[in-house]
Amino acid sequence: MSKPERQLTLNLFIYPGGHHEAAWRYKDSEPQRVLDIGYYQELARRAEAAKFDAIFFADGPSLPENIRYSARLRFEPITWLTAIAAATSRIGLIGTASTTYNEPYNLARLFASLDHISNGRAGWNIVTTSDAGAAQNFGLPEHPPHGERYEKAREFLEVVTKLWDSWEDDALVADAESGVFADADKVHRIDHAGKHYRVRGPLNVARPPQGRPVYVQAGSSEDGRSFAAQHAEAIFTAHQTLASAQAFYDDIKKRAVALGRHPEHVRILPGISPFIGSTQAEADRLEEEINDLIQPAASLEQLKRMLGVDLSGYDLDAPFPRHLIDTSGPKGIASRFQLVIDIVDREQPTLRGLIKRLAGARGHWVLAGTPERIADEIQTWFETGAADGFNVMPPWLTGGFDAFVAEVVPILRKRGLFREEYSGTTLRDHYGLPRPESGYAVARRRSA
Amino acid sequence: MSKPERQLTLNLFIYPGGHHEAAWRYKDSEPQRVLDIGYYQELARRAEAAKFDAIFFADGPSLPENIRYSARLRFEPITWLTAIAAATSRIGLIGTASTTYNEPYNLARLFASLDHISNGRAGWNIVTTSDAGAAQNFGLPEHPPHGERYEKAREFLEVVTKLWDSWEDDALVADAESGVFADADKVHRIDHAGKHYRVRGPLNVARPPQGRPVYVQAGSSEDGRSFAAQHAEAIFTAHQTLASAQAFYDDIKKRAVALGRHPEHVRILPGISPFIGSTQAEADRLEEEINDLIQPAASLEQLKRMLGVDLSGYDLDAPFPRHLIDTSGPKGIASRFQLVIDIVDREQPTLRGLIKRLAGARGHWVLAGTPERIADEIQTWFETGAADGFNVMPPWLTGGFDAFVAEVVPILRKRGLFREEYSGTTLRDHYGLPRPESGYAVARRRSA
Repeated sequence: MSKPERQLTLNLFIYPGGHHEAAWRYKDSEPQRVLDIGYYQELARRAEAAKFDAIFFADGPSLPENIRYSARLRFEPITWLTAIAAATSRIGLIGTASTTYNEPYNLARLFASLDHISNGRAGWNIVTTSDAGAAQNFGLPEHPPHGERYEKAREFLEVVTKLWDSWEDDALVADAESGVFADADKVHRIDHAGKHYRVRGPLNVARPPQGRPVYVQAGSSEDGRSFAAQHAEAIFTAHQTLASAQAFYDDIKKRAVALGRHPEHVRILPGISPFIGSTQAEADRLEEEINDLIQPAASLEQLKRMLGVDLSGYDLDAPFPRHLIDTSGPKGIASRFQLVIDIVDREQPTLRGLIKRLAGARGHWVLAGTPERIADEIQTWFETGAADGFNVMPPWLTGGFDAFVAEVVPILRKRGLFREEYSGTTLRDHYGLPRPESGYAVARRRSA
Repeated sequence: MSKPERQLTLNLFIYPGGHHEAAWRYKDSEPQRVLDIGYYQELARRAEAAKFDAIFFADGPSLPENIRYSARLRFEPITWLTAIAAATSRIGLIGTASTTYNEPYNLARLFASLDHISNGRAGWNIVTTSDAGAAQNFGLPEHPPHGERYEKAREFLEVVTKLWDSWEDDALVADAESGVFADADKVHRIDHAGKHYRVRGPLNVARPPQGRPVYVQAGSSEDGRSFAAQHAEAIFTAHQTLASAQAFYDDIKKRAVALGRHPEHVRILPGISPFIGSTQAEADRLEEEINDLIQPAASLEQLKRMLGVDLSGYDLDAPFPRHLIDTSGPKGIASRFQLVIDIVDREQPTLRGLIKRLAGARGHWVLAGTPERIADEIQTWFETGAADGFNVMPPWLTGGFDAFVAEVVPILRKRGLFREEYSGTTLRDHYGLPRPESGYAVARRRSA
C-alpha cells in the first residue's frame, strides 16, 4: 500500500493560543503574546525547521462575539505573514481574505506584494465570509446570501487572476542603457467589465514570482465544492470520520477531472487536531485537562455561529435539543452545520458533551493518542483516498505543535511519507503545483 | 537665532531608483532590484543608523502611464513597510493610502497591524488620490471631484479613528486564571452611520501601540490645508522658495492654533532633493549628468499629471506654451499645479528647461551645492519659520542618500540641529507628538 514517491503535505494552521477554545488558558500558553509578532515568527521558524509546507491563518473582517472569554481576535493575515516572510526563507505563507469585503485591485496588490517579498511563498485562502456580522462593518444592509457571495467570488477571482497576469513574466526590463524600464507591449490593461466589477488594470507591480499565489479554498457547500473543483489548488476541509473524508475526496477529484484538471493539482487537506501522549491514557488525560478549562459561554457562541441558533440558557447536562435545529433553514457556517448535526445524530450527546466535542478544533478531527497511533491514522487517510496531507491544528501552542514535530513527524519520515528536506523554494514547489503562465502571454504565443 | 532644544525632523522619502525621473538609469542605480525587498530593508537600516525619524513611501492604486521609460511601478506600501519593520527596530514607517479607494475597516486593520508589528512606528499619509486613472480600477464611472473626495476623507478619518479607539488601551486582559481574555466593557461598537459610511465595529484587534498611527497629510489646496490644519500631525509639502514655504508654514500653524491645537503638534516638512558635491561646480555637474539621462516622453507624462494638459508634440526648445494652461479650469495635481505655473511665470523656461526643472523631484525643491551650503539652507528654512524638518528625497539611490548622511548630517549635528541618538522608540516619540487617548476611555472618565 506504501507509495514512497507520493509525499504528505503538512501545514501548520495557527490560531492565537491554539485551536482548542480554552487553549489560551492552558499552563503552557502565553496569551499575553497574542499580538507579539516575534511569537509567530518563532513558531514559523520551527515549522520551517520541520520542513512543513506552509503556515496558515484564518480571517474574517469582524470581531467575534464573546471576546470576553475567547482569544479570537483577528490580526490581519497578509501583514502578519509579510512580517513572518522576513524572518523565514522557505515555508509557504497562506492567508485568508474575503472576496465579499475587498476590492479586487487592492487585494491583488497585497498578495502580489506578499509573493514578491517572500520570493514566491504566498497562498490565498479564498473565502466569501460566513460571518454575517461583517456586513455591518462595510455599510451593507445585510450579509449577501450564499449564492450571491459565490457568484461574486467567481468574478472576483477572474479579475485578480487577470491582474496578476497583466504583466507578462518578462515585461520588467530595467535596461538603463536603452532607457526601457518595461516592455509596454507586455503590460496589459485587463478592461474587465462584468456584473459586479469593472476594472481597467494593469496592476501597478510586476508579475509575482509564482505567477499567481496558490489558490486555496475551504467551502464544502455545493457552491463551495464546485468553486474548489474548478479553481482551488489546495482545499482545507473538516471531517470527523474516514468515510466522510473519502467521500469528499472522491467527489472533488472527480469534479476536477471532469473539468479537465489534473487530480494531483488539487491537494485535499483535512484538519487534524492531535492530543499526543506516551500512552492512550496520557493523551486522553491531556485532552480532558484542557477541556476542563472550557467556559460554556464562549463555546455556546461558537455553536451559535455554526448552527445559526442561540442555545444559551439551555441545560448543559440535558440531551442536546435536536428539535430546535431546522435543517431546511439557514445554515450558519455551511461547512460546519451538517458536520455538527451528524455528530448529534450519531453520538446523541448532551449539550455539554457536544461543546467539548467541538471545543477542540471547531468541528475538525480531534484525535487523542500515542504518536504511533496518530501516524497510523494519518497514513491510513493518506493511503485510502481521504487526504493528500493535513492541516495540522495543534490544540494548544506552542507545546501541541512541538510534540507533533518531535514525536509524530519522525515516524512519518521513517515510513517515507514526509520530506527530509525541501526540494524547491516556492509554495508551488512544495505542493508540486505548476507555475501558471500569464493568460496574456499564452494569447500572444497562440496568435504568433 | 539657534535654538538647540528644537530638533530637525528628517524623513527619507524612497522612490524606486530615486526621485529624479531618470535616476534609475544612473550608473550607481540597481534598477533590477526594484522589487527586491532586501534593497529597501538595507536602505531603511542605513536611515536608522543615521537616526532618521522615518522612511516614507508614496502610493496610488493605478499604474502610471509611460512605464516604458519610467521606473514608477508602485509596490503596496503597507506590506512593504511591514517587511521593513521586521528588519529594523526604531525608524518610523510612513505609508500612503487612499481614503477614496479603500474601505475604512480594512485600512484600519492594516495600519493597526503595521503599528503592532513595528511596536509603534506606523504613520499614515492620508491622501484622496489625485490620479483620475484610479477610478477605472474600482468600477467608478469617474474620479470623484476634489471637494467630494475631501468630504469622504473627513468621514473616513472619523471612522478609522473610532475603530482604533474601539479597544481601550487596557481592554486586552489575557488572564488565564480568571478566564477573562478581554474586558468587554472596554471594547466598543462604534455604530458609525454617516453620509458615506456605515460601520458597526469594534475593530478585531487590540488598540495599536501608538493609540493611532501618526496622521500625515500632503494636500495644499484649500481643502487640503483645512484638512491638514485640523487633523495632520505631519505635513509633507513642496516649495521652490523660502518665501513660499514661510507663507505656507505660517498659514498652517495659524489655522491649527485657531482650531485649538498646539502648533508643535503639526510638523511641517518640505521636500528637499539635494545634489551634493565637494564644490558647487561638482554638484552642478552631477545634476547635469543625471538630467542628461532624461527621456522627454516620460517627463511629459509627469507634466501632464501635474497640469492636466498633454504637451507631447510641442517643440521642446521653444518657450513653454503658457497660453495653453487654463488656470481657472481643473488643476491636475492641485499641490503641484500652482507651483509649476509659478516656475513658468518666474523663470520663463523652454519646455525642455521646465522638464529638467521638474525631473529632479516632481516639483520639490532641488538644490545642488556643497554639504555646507545645503546645511546652511536647511538651517535657514528651519530657523526662519519655513520648516520643522525635511522630507529628504535623494535624486538617486542609494548614493544620493549615502552622500547626505555622510556629508550633510554631521554638519547638522555639529550645529546641534539633529539628534545623535533616538530618545524614544515610537514614531510619536521621534516627532515629539502626544499619544492620543481612546475617545471611549475619555468619555468613560468624564462620565465617572
